[in-house]
Amino acid sequence: MLGIDPGLRLTGFGVIEKQGEKLAYIASGTIKSGEGELPARIKVILAGLNEVIQTYTPEQVAIEKVFVNVNPQSTLLLGQARGAAISAAVLRDLPVAEYTALQVKQSVVGNGHAAKEQVQEMVKRLLKLPGTPKPDSADALACAICHAHGGQGLGRLATAGFRVRGGRLI
Amino acid sequence: MLGIDPGLRLTGFGVIEKQGEKLAYIASGTIKSGEGELPARIKVILAGLNEVIQTYTPEQVAIEKVFVNVNPQSTLLLGQARGAAISAAVLRDLPVAEYTALQVKQSVVGNGHAAKEQVQEMVKRLLKLPGTPKPDSADALACAICHAHGGQGLGRLATAGFRVRGGRLI
Repeated sequence: MLGIDPGLRLTGFGVIEKQGEKLAYIASGTIKSGEGELPARIKVILAGLNEVIQTYTPEQVAIEKVFVNVNPQSTLLLGQARGAAISAAVLRDLPVAEYTALQVKQSVVGNGHAAKEQVQEMVKRLLKLPGTPKPDSADALACAICHAHGGQGLGRLATAGFRVRGGRLI
Repeated sequence: MLGIDPGLRLTGFGVIEKQGEKLAYIASGTIKSGEGELPARIKVILAGLNEVIQTYTPEQVAIEKVFVNVNPQSTLLLGQARGAAISAAVLRDLPVAEYTALQVKQSVVGNGHAAKEQVQEMVKRLLKLPGTPKPDSADALACAICHAHGGQGLGRLATAGFRVRGGRLI
């Protein structure tokens, strides 16, 4: 499945595969849409995600719900980038699930208010990566992991009576 | 050329043709994207605009810049719909021009703060329509007219020393 962390300048993507109960890393990266006019940026986002989808043929897409910014103009711009990312997925007839950052962090770290570094660290562990992924890739991979966990994962375990600290069961 | 008035529930479109100095009406209408989940709505917007583009083969697209809403969540949703509309155009390699509502009204009515009814009336006159177009279609057609006027039209005439009242030269 493909996770997307949408942004107007940087769109993170992460592809993972569910093999039974295990998750395997396939690919991740960042699409840089530059500083140009909005239509040109949208074209870059569409082309980039299209290439990812063609290359890795994911069957499902999970996309992070973006924060409403204090600056309404930024909110609008971000919304447009996110609209383009969703467009890339639905044009390929892929189902799109949406998760808030809180849901993603809850699922991956076990704490909805976890720091960026904790997300990166847990993504590295869960996917057995040799190094720490960059923040945008990590967020996209985390979104895919959240979806693979049925949107719950460690968060669900936590509420089921297990105790979780720093993303680990204790 | 194709004018688009983007919205999350209703996306207006209007197709006109420039024949020398004259403008001719080709088609207009509204794409209703319903009340479903965001990805489903985006799919409807993309499919609808795709059909319009395939049917009328416009060579340029003009899209209205949307207002930032007082409600940030609405701004975000509207941004996503607009991102989908721009996606439909750039996927077909069409150049996309953006105009504010003020620019469109200035160009079509000669008054950047004209009422919706004045826009509808001027669109009807300029395109010699038999009836008054509905607001969403009228806004999309007005955006196309603004683009055909080079983004200026009556507004430019007004600043060139002509006097304009209610969209008419006097």
